[in-house]
Amino acid sequence: MGLFITLEGGEGAGKTELARALAARLVDVDVVVTFEPGGTPLGAVLRERLFDEAHPLSPWAETFLFLADRATHVSEVIRPALARGAAVICDRFADSTVAYQGYGRQLDPTLIEALNRQAAGGLVPHLTFFLDVPTQQGLDRSQRARDDRIGRESIDFHRRVAEGFKQLALKEPDRIHTLDAARPADEVLEMAWTLIKPRLAMIGHRTSA
Amino acid sequence: MGLFITLEGGEGAGKTELARALAARLVDVDVVVTFEPGGTPLGAVLRERLFDEAHPLSPWAETFLFLADRATHVSEVIRPALARGAAVICDRFADSTVAYQGYGRQLDPTLIEALNRQAAGGLVPHLTFFLDVPTQQGLDRSQRARDDRIGRESIDFHRRVAEGFKQLALKEPDRIHTLDAARPADEVLEMAWTLIKPRLAMIGHRTSA
Repeated sequence: MGLFITLEGGEGAGKTELARALAARLVDVDVVVTFEPGGTPLGAVLRERLFDEAHPLSPWAETFLFLADRATHVSEVIRPALARGAAVICDRFADSTVAYQGYGRQLDPTLIEALNRQAAGGLVPHLTFFLDVPTQQGLDRSQRARDDRIGRESIDFHRRVAEGFKQLALKEPDRIHTLDAARPADEVLEMAWTLIKPRLAMIGHRTSA
Repeated sequence: MGLFITLEGGEGAGKTELARALAARLVDVDVVVTFEPGGTPLGAVLRERLFDEAHPLSPWAETFLFLADRATHVSEVIRPALARGAAVICDRFADSTVAYQGYGRQLDPTLIEALNRQAAGGLVPHLTFFLDVPTQQGLDRSQRARDDRIGRESIDFHRRVAEGFKQLALKEPDRIHTLDAARPADEVLEMAWTLIKPRLAMIGHRTSA
């Protein structure tokens, strides 16, 4: 039931913009655009803590908060939407935790993947777009990279994160599609749309585009 | 460095009272009495959510919040206190997560134990008291069992929790000492004190009691 699409990538890759543009194209279906961390009331509280520079968190404390957010988001928002047949477009999901905490913070990526499975209750996206942008270029265009605790990590941290996404894309080529996010936004949108189109029948969308 | 004592058990076992009574005996050393969840600013926020009946949490969301709380508590409160040579008395710690979420919520106790090791950064208590009280008797005398989301779980839930603590005590007899918490509080205190006394030399306590 439903169609679950996740958008992944480092800072300034254009995920939020792409999420909105895709939603705008899905005009005649039920679409939910959501995000992690923070897409639930609990998540909003956690999000504040996760990105607050005044309150440092240990790498595992940070990881467990992201996982708690995910578990709540899946059960309260994503699963109910999929169950009623909606298309769910989620800005960051499980792969971000592998990339940021597993590769960026250098915790065990295999353990993180096991925890993601628990947090998501086995839910796996039908389609994931990894928006690949050169690390420095992404940081230059990201507001968050200037404003919060994780965004302001070192360039080496963000390079490890990018490497994490690349490794995931190599490991799961059927699910994760890499898009060249250095291209103009309308081209990225077309590339994504081409991959989504064949799946729209799943949710009864009449393709006209 | 330091002496790390944890108090464990179900609802109404008398952990909080025992923590205070032990602290009162440790008059000539640096003593920190603390608790989980909630012994840090982040923890206070999480504690509210964890016990709030108006906001249900999935079993894994709950577990990850307890673990995030523990990771923060260990790095911000417990380790610094131990590093300066203090005695730390902690009302609930890692064993509670195994008992409540592993046995009570029926998540995988082995996975929970692995996560506890990450959350605690490998820190293991020198001494743990499991305050064993018949489940119904404990519930009858517990305020929390009337007031919050976890306390108000079914008697079967609380029996599984008690079974969890018993299994842990069997598995780690050198660390976990079972005290009969159906006995009067002053007797429980004497039993605990007898076990703590030989360890006080570790932190330079002059035993007079």
